[in-house]
Amino acid sequence: MSMDVTFLGTGSAYPSPCRGASAVVFRTEGECWLFDCGEGTQTQFMKSPLKAGRITKIFITHLHGDHLFGLPGFLCTVSLQCGSTAVKQHVEIYGPVGLRDFVFRSLEISHSQLAFPYVVHELIPSKDQCPVEEFKDFSRSGIDNEMASEVEGRTICEDPEDGSYMLFENEQFTVKAIKLFHRIPSFGFVIREKERPGKLDVKKLKDFGIQPGPLCGKLKLGATVTLENGQTVHPSDVLGDPIPGRKVCILGDCSGICSVGSAKLCQEADILIHEATLDDTQMDKAKEHGHSTPKMAAEFANLCRAHKLILTHFSQRYKPPGMVSEGDEDVLVLKKQAENYLLSQDVILAEDFLTITIPIKKQN
Amino acid sequence: MSMDVTFLGTGSAYPSPCRGASAVVFRTEGECWLFDCGEGTQTQFMKSPLKAGRITKIFITHLHGDHLFGLPGFLCTVSLQCGSTAVKQHVEIYGPVGLRDFVFRSLEISHSQLAFPYVVHELIPSKDQCPVEEFKDFSRSGIDNEMASEVEGRTICEDPEDGSYMLFENEQFTVKAIKLFHRIPSFGFVIREKERPGKLDVKKLKDFGIQPGPLCGKLKLGATVTLENGQTVHPSDVLGDPIPGRKVCILGDCSGICSVGSAKLCQEADILIHEATLDDTQMDKAKEHGHSTPKMAAEFANLCRAHKLILTHFSQRYKPPGMVSEGDEDVLVLKKQAENYLLSQDVILAEDFLTITIPIKKQN
Ligand SMILES: [Zn+2]
Ligand SMILES: [Zn+2]
Ligand SMILES: [Zn+2]
Ligand SMILES: [Zn+2]
Repeated sequence: MSMDVTFLGTGSAYPSPCRGASAVVFRTEGECWLFDCGEGTQTQFMKSPLKAGRITKIFITHLHGDHLFGLPGFLCTVSLQCGSTAVKQHVEIYGPVGLRDFVFRSLEISHSQLAFPYVVHELIPSKDQCPVEEFKDFSRSGIDNEMASEVEGRTICEDPEDGSYMLFENEQFTVKAIKLFHRIPSFGFVIREKERPGKLDVKKLKDFGIQPGPLCGKLKLGATVTLENGQTVHPSDVLGDPIPGRKVCILGDCSGICSVGSAKLCQEADILIHEATLDDTQMDKAKEHGHSTPKMAAEFANLCRAHKLILTHFSQRYKPPGMVSEGDEDVLVLKKQAENYLLSQDVILAEDFLTITIPIKKQN
Repeated sequence: MSMDVTFLGTGSAYPSPCRGASAVVFRTEGECWLFDCGEGTQTQFMKSPLKAGRITKIFITHLHGDHLFGLPGFLCTVSLQCGSTAVKQHVEIYGPVGLRDFVFRSLEISHSQLAFPYVVHELIPSKDQCPVEEFKDFSRSGIDNEMASEVEGRTICEDPEDGSYMLFENEQFTVKAIKLFHRIPSFGFVIREKERPGKLDVKKLKDFGIQPGPLCGKLKLGATVTLENGQTVHPSDVLGDPIPGRKVCILGDCSGICSVGSAKLCQEADILIHEATLDDTQMDKAKEHGHSTPKMAAEFANLCRAHKLILTHFSQRYKPPGMVSEGDEDVLVLKKQAENYLLSQDVILAEDFLTITIPIKKQN
């Protein structure tokens, strides 16, 4: 089952002609999810091979404008393009409390009526996610659920056991959020694919005398079957090893995580997407603004033994390769700095429109 | 005194890589004003030679997203770029009631503190500006003035005499708004430059025996002076004819005006910027959505005897010249349609980044 992530915006603070504001698309068969929606995300979609209308879930890491201000326009344009007659799946939106109010009011003031239902599930941040003086409580200013959408959005609280937030689970995936420390409360999202049953072993089937047909289907789905000769066959008798699930971690702006539990949840991530707003020579400034440098990102990648680190959310001063003019800083510096601290993992610099595939894992 | 308008977005409904969402910049010595601020306007500024930080006034024609959703990000980025230490003039924003609330809440939810003061002056629309069922009253949902900004914004009502709204007046300009009919209440803005005194006539000064110096300055400023020989000289004795003021009319989305007074205010406009979302073959559809076609724009230009008509706000289906692929429609069709109905005026198709100069008028 194919799985990839595509960056639609890799710039920090605001969109520029060189780098869009934050937006990442996660795709796998049947699913297309958007992580953050900075201003201009809808135009970045149009410039990419991706279809905005395919998005069924949107995750907002935090409420800074460079991650949020494209959301009302994105929803309106998807609505316009899918038309009022087309069947568009409803859209589920996840993000910090205050998001529902913002989405609702932006659509209301602009007289926008979406052609599809949407629902906003809100995460309740905790005070350890930002400097005390920056913490604002938006939970009371929220508008009524019924006003905002037809379906009632959930309010999602921290799981006291591991400090995570359970966003949803289906047959294929669980998605949890972890708490990050930033100028304002920020979250990371951990997508965990479930283990899938191994392939039917043709040789073993033959040994049991099982022909291709319904029996094979039952075994593949995990059912024990009885053959005509009375023999009982368990799935484990004929299936190869289960295929391990993949893990993709997409972190919002941060200068660090808030609990050891977060690092545990990211353990062995196949892909860790981490911000690196400034280079290591500016670590103090980065931390002051709640941001990370390549060293900080690399150390977190080491801590959770991520297999691949992808840096993004670069200060607009770091021009993409090919756009570096005299006086500009080259983003490749950040890659080298990360490599200085990484144990052995790959590090990749995100660029607008870069797609990274996450291959199926080998059986254990 | 130079005067020009630059289009930063000429597309309807949403921004695309071919056409940005609505935004026009009006410049004259010492003034730089933005009309509408669709999503992506800040990036369009960066692609143009204009400086976003120069903007001191922003006018929003109506609250549809394609004219509004770029405003919070625009303000945040200007604030970031001017820095907290730099002296940035305060920004005055004019638009329909509801705008103050939207700006305030967008900045609040994103924890944005602007490095400069801003104030929102709200226009109270009337019910004849849109279909009855679309009219929403945002006047009560407004937040307190004191919350929104340090300076108190005005609430501007219709002048019952001519149905216009007086936005402001300074030594050089008056700016009024006129009511337009659209899906939701929409406004047009009429910038009227004041008549300026004529030039000193060197020959006439010589006849009076007046040497270059303080006396000339006083006469130029309109004061009557007495010469050493006791002779009284009036400004009109030595000044050439006054230089007539220019008039620029920038209209929001509309399928028509709401009163004859509006046409009067636009009378003899040097430049009339009018939307033409669809071509004449789709006039019914255009009207249904509160929009105009080239014929409708041309007829209004004729009615107010505008000297130059500029069409903009094109459906994204009309690709700019040079971007027309097979199957696309060419925007030049709209120009020809307007020419079919115009009396003798020029018509120009707006394009992103097109600048149009408004020359000083000849003395009467
Ligand atoms: Zn950011
Ligand atoms: Zn941030
Ligand atoms: Zn529009
Ligand atoms: Zn409109």
